[in-house]
Amino acid sequence: MAEERIWTAGLLIIGDEILSGRTQDRNVAQVGTWLNLQGIRLAEVRMVADRIEAIAEAVNALRSAYDYLFTTGGIGPTHDDISVDGIAAALGREVVVHPQARAILEAFYVDRGGINEARLRMARVPAGADLIENSFSGAPGIHVENIYILAGVPRIAAMMLESLVGKIEGGRPLLSHTLGGWIAESEVATLLAETEKAHPGTQIGSYPFFREGRAGANFVIRSADEAILGECAAALRMGLEALGKDVADGGL
Amino acid sequence: MAEERIWTAGLLIIGDEILSGRTQDRNVAQVGTWLNLQGIRLAEVRMVADRIEAIAEAVNALRSAYDYLFTTGGIGPTHDDISVDGIAAALGREVVVHPQARAILEAFYVDRGGINEARLRMARVPAGADLIENSFSGAPGIHVENIYILAGVPRIAAMMLESLVGKIEGGRPLLSHTLGGWIAESEVATLLAETEKAHPGTQIGSYPFFREGRAGANFVIRSADEAILGECAAALRMGLEALGKDVADGGL
Repeated sequence: MAEERIWTAGLLIIGDEILSGRTQDRNVAQVGTWLNLQGIRLAEVRMVADRIEAIAEAVNALRSAYDYLFTTGGIGPTHDDISVDGIAAALGREVVVHPQARAILEAFYVDRGGINEARLRMARVPAGADLIENSFSGAPGIHVENIYILAGVPRIAAMMLESLVGKIEGGRPLLSHTLGGWIAESEVATLLAETEKAHPGTQIGSYPFFREGRAGANFVIRSADEAILGECAAALRMGLEALGKDVADGGL
Repeated sequence: MAEERIWTAGLLIIGDEILSGRTQDRNVAQVGTWLNLQGIRLAEVRMVADRIEAIAEAVNALRSAYDYLFTTGGIGPTHDDISVDGIAAALGREVVVHPQARAILEAFYVDRGGINEARLRMARVPAGADLIENSFSGAPGIHVENIYILAGVPRIAAMMLESLVGKIEGGRPLLSHTLGGWIAESEVATLLAETEKAHPGTQIGSYPFFREGRAGANFVIRSADEAILGECAAALRMGLEALGKDVADGGL
């Protein structure tokens, strides 16, 4: 069997409000989950402030390291929205007004006070880009080279991801199976490592938690192959039960 | 007045579960907020998978770019906990068992089934490191050079941050004041940009939201100087009111 190609993506989250702690990011989990369904692994995330040089540097590092780069944030109408400028600088492209984006914004704002200079900022794209539909609030996302530029508001980013389904090439999704229990992970660490080793093509992650004053853990088995995944999960379950542990399928 | 020193930090979040979307990260907001109270700006975040080379590369980039580097995740007892190995590799240091960490773990587990090989993994540190107290679950965090290695479980990371208060040098905290309203940010973009420009030493961020079918925004004014912050917030408030907008102090 030929070695299967693994498709990878980087994600760049742009915005002072994330770094200051003011805004709880939701896009890492949202984009990571969505990418996995497309058969693409989110391999690295960076978060930078609203500074053109910081954006450009991260864009160049991530777009060359992975098959795709997704960005969120900084594409609104205000002075701190400079993602397009940073990405265009990274690509050595001019920033231009995209005629179709302008038409979308003019139509969207016709009953909302009309177009103005700030709203027109949202039609600016790196030269040669095309648009990603935003069925929520007009202003489109942007696609240029291997970069997908999304809004920062999670609900709008979600709509843009929705419109990209079927348009981005990926491989087989990574499947997962979770087993949980009121188990201290340090009691079963050897079993986890040995079970992973005995099932090439799988990874087992161990995620402890503390609830109601008790220690527990979820063990997540991942594989792109459904049969191998099932064998590994069954083996781990048997191993845990052999140690006298109660195991909850699907996790706790 | 001498130019004030700005203290900066990078943050490295380590773990497949964050990138896969399985686990919603909480540490960026938690560490960012805490750093700001210490007068340190979180300048960049990276998130990488549980791979030694990926960890080491990010550690070396961030520890040299900023005054401090914080890491979360990957310091538990299981085979996928390899943060210490990645950080030691980045620093060119051996991994050793820290005698005080071993003593802490032996005491913690004395009524919990005793020490074992997996639990002893949590006493491993890069040579020359010292410990960060964990008053929640025994296994300590680790401090080496300008790097602070914290647990991934947010509640444990919080306790470790608590024990670092007063031990890390910073500057003046960045203060903020928020004004909110049922205002489309694209109607007031020019005002925001001009108000920021008229008040050097401030930054104004604009954060739109959509609730109950209406568009609104919070405008966050930031400055390390309380007087300048107050002047800028008052000017923005007057400007918004002059445009006929209702303004909510503290944001919506």
